Amino acid sequence: MSEEKHEIGLEVLGTEECLQLLSGAVIGRVAFQADGVPHLLPVNYAADADGTVVFRTAEHTVLESVGGRPAVFEADGFDAVNHTGWSVCVRGTGRELTGHDTTARRLLELTVISWAPGQRDRWFAITPDEVTGRRIPLVRAADFGWIPGVVS
Amino acid sequence: MSEEKHEIGLEVLGTEECLQLLSGAVIGRVAFQADGVPHLLPVNYAADADGTVVFRTAEHTVLESVGGRPAVFEADGFDAVNHTGWSVCVRGTGRELTGHDTTARRLLELTVISWAPGQRDRWFAITPDEVTGRRIPLVRAADFGWIPGVVS
Repeated sequence: MSEEKHEIGLEVLGTEECLQLLSGAVIGRVAFQADGVPHLLPVNYAADADGTVVFRTAEHTVLESVGGRPAVFEADGFDAVNHTGWSVCVRGTGRELTGHDTTARRLLELTVISWAPGQRDRWFAITPDEVTGRRIPLVRAADFGWIPGVVS
Repeated sequence: MSEEKHEIGLEVLGTEECLQLLSGAVIGRVAFQADGVPHLLPVNYAADADGTVVFRTAEHTVLESVGGRPAVFEADGFDAVNHTGWSVCVRGTGRELTGHDTTARRLLELTVISWAPGQRDRWFAITPDEVTGRRIPLVRAADFGWIPGVVS
């Protein structure tokens, strides 16, 4: 099943724009399946230049099960006034960052500020197999033939 | 694996408050597994009084695969200035609303305004087995012994 099916009426974003949007947000959500159950959890995150997303959790949380599993990360931004917005997805596999290799050591230097209190010393990453994004196009009144300032 | 594990430092919300928060938002995200792959998609939605969430999609989208599958819906709201926020999850099973029974007919009368353009005539619902919510508690400066107006 291709994600490309989910494009009706939506603008498909290029990779560069997806990476830019990812780097500008600090809250996203992680989804994965564990024990036959889908999980969906909001996280504070940081994004690396290639779209790898890094987030932290405490000991014994649901989120620690993301390690070794297929996962999707999503960040978005919506404008409720103009009914527009964007959404970027990073698909890949979750892995715990233990600092045993160069990449992990580099990712562990990213700043991930967790808004939730408490120790959150376990770091996880989703390394992207695919980064995709969509935007809801802004529909202007002019597209409907309305003329600003004229009330019929 | 219990969702209760994911509570470190977070305030657990009661069902009434969860339902109230759900009814006050219009954007959420749906996660489910299909063909061995986790999916995570933002949707416009409406919530029924019992926490059933209803959303629409077009023909031939990834989202139509939610029918008959275990699914999680999540809505949230965050305050980037104060580093606080809430998140509510509805866990249940996705079903397509075809109008063949009383509940479906009632749910089809909810107003679900899709911001994305294009025909979105297929309606789906997630009927809750469980509605849970968490809030990141507001950390006040006073909790750290700081006195407003005194700069050390």
